[in-house]
Amino acid sequence: MTIGVIAKLPIQDGKGAEFEAFFTELARQVRANEPGNIAYQLTKSRTEPNVYKVLELYKDQDALTHHGGTEYFKAAGPKFAGFLAGRPEIEYLDGVG
Amino acid sequence: MTIGVIAKLPIQDGKGAEFEAFFTELARQVRANEPGNIAYQLTKSRTEPNVYKVLELYKDQDALTHHGGTEYFKAAGPKFAGFLAGRPEIEYLDGVG
Repeated sequence: MTIGVIAKLPIQDGKGAEFEAFFTELARQVRANEPGNIAYQLTKSRTEPNVYKVLELYKDQDALTHHGGTEYFKAAGPKFAGFLAGRPEIEYLDGVG
Repeated sequence: MTIGVIAKLPIQDGKGAEFEAFFTELARQVRANEPGNIAYQLTKSRTEPNVYKVLELYKDQDALTHHGGTEYFKAAGPKFAGFLAGRPEIEYLDGVG
């Protein structure tokens, strides 16, 4: 079953450009190395300043578990911490159809 | 620029299965006919009963505008109304990277 993820990331004021460059490289690695990843798109809120949302789709739970265990994703964790202005909110959704 | 959409749809209690069948066919038409659509995935909330979220990605604003103008999407509008338990919330997001 497809799994959807919406990751809401509040980023520190003034760090948007640096965060976008960091995340674009991470997304490139995800898309290049994870056949079970269907989509991994960074987006920026139009209504909440400094808020980004990552829209993610995986073909199944195994693909999501694999994503979380990759070396580049684990290495990204401490770097994320340097950009965040607050707690990220991660929502997991069950794909239909 | 990529455009993301998160459509939150509260569905009437007991109509989930019928709604899922209806939406699966709509999604099939979107994916088959819209080269500018990158993703169009129905998902079900794990935390809010009877709440569905559609995760959508378009390659640009033109592709999103085209989606809204298709015959099948316009025809789906009145059918959606018969499933909804409340106002849908549609969030538009600007793609990065």
